[in-house]
Amino acid sequence: MKVLVFGANGQIGKHLVSLIRKNDKLEAKAAIRKEEQADYFKDLGADVAIVNLEGEIEDMAKAAEDVDAVVFTAGSGPNTGKDKTIMVDLDGAVKTIEAAKQANVKRYIMISSFDTTREAIQSAPESFAPYVVAKHYADEWLRDTDLDYTIIHPGALTNEAGKNQVELAEQVERGEVPREDIAHVILESLLNDSTIKKEFQVVSGNSTIEDAIRSL
Amino acid sequence: MKVLVFGANGQIGKHLVSLIRKNDKLEAKAAIRKEEQADYFKDLGADVAIVNLEGEIEDMAKAAEDVDAVVFTAGSGPNTGKDKTIMVDLDGAVKTIEAAKQANVKRYIMISSFDTTREAIQSAPESFAPYVVAKHYADEWLRDTDLDYTIIHPGALTNEAGKNQVELAEQVERGEVPREDIAHVILESLLNDSTIKKEFQVVSGNSTIEDAIRSL
Repeated sequence: MKVLVFGANGQIGKHLVSLIRKNDKLEAKAAIRKEEQADYFKDLGADVAIVNLEGEIEDMAKAAEDVDAVVFTAGSGPNTGKDKTIMVDLDGAVKTIEAAKQANVKRYIMISSFDTTREAIQSAPESFAPYVVAKHYADEWLRDTDLDYTIIHPGALTNEAGKNQVELAEQVERGEVPREDIAHVILESLLNDSTIKKEFQVVSGNSTIEDAIRSL
Repeated sequence: MKVLVFGANGQIGKHLVSLIRKNDKLEAKAAIRKEEQADYFKDLGADVAIVNLEGEIEDMAKAAEDVDAVVFTAGSGPNTGKDKTIMVDLDGAVKTIEAAKQANVKRYIMISSFDTTREAIQSAPESFAPYVVAKHYADEWLRDTDLDYTIIHPGALTNEAGKNQVELAEQVERGEVPREDIAHVILESLLNDSTIKKEFQVVSGNSTIEDAIRSL
């Protein structure tokens, strides 16, 4: 299974491409914005596609032509200008969904925010709310498709090393989780079709990621 | 027919409430953000509801309980912070749509932007694109409902007096149009059920608004 990773150059993305490269069943194709990011991924043995998430759906669909799954882990993050929040976290995400459809790629994994419900929008601090809104509508767009999607809602992301110890369910208590563990959760989701049409929150906990995914 | 106008305190909104008050078949209810805006509308003989578009759907639905139609002509405008673009032009609009559904109000008129297609997003100047994205998703949300909607796409808005001379069709050439004429187009749309499930662009032209709406 060949996996196109939007946001490959982000921290979760880099962990994910490394994990995919170590797995016999998977191949990685890194979708990155800048030519100068390419060598890093080529050195890892991954394919590369240069794609701007503010660009055309057609370019994204072309990058998806030879793959079996799409992962969206790009993000302007909550701290960029709010123009990027709407252009990347919402519209960029939706364009990758449409690109997957155009390229007949059924499998799609979205890295969302911990809670993107209407209630979460209304209770978010003013500076964070636009990001939650953007992720809310991207998630809604994906749920409304026929894609074999999985929506992963991670807790507060940290840069600690992965511990392979998580709590994972439709709803869990708010908490932290290392980015490396989220990359691992994406990997296990790709390997387990039981995650199709499901969404779940993930924080650090007491199960291995393999067990947590299997007992979803 | 009683009409709840979101964005009543805006320039199109004020023209619209005045026009509604002069029409025998219609009554106006002005949805406004601040208590101190209320007297203006009460003096005109309109009902008033204080509603914050960044607030809860339930409050909007309550304001819509006693009306027969909802008009959304609120807008942060293209020149506010991009956080307001996503919170008001997108999420605020969607919440009024959900509020209309909750309150069992079938008729809904959306004042959109001239062109909110995917092509328009991709070709918009960088500073304007987030606004087009916000309006795009609000329009898409409305099209996906069972409401009796009309989506009006006005040309570049001016503050000139209305001329009651427009060109109005699914697609027209880009041009200017007075805000007062757009208020008049909303009024005629409310009075003509032939506009239900339709959307059209409007610029200044050579037909009266009554004729243009009738020959849609």
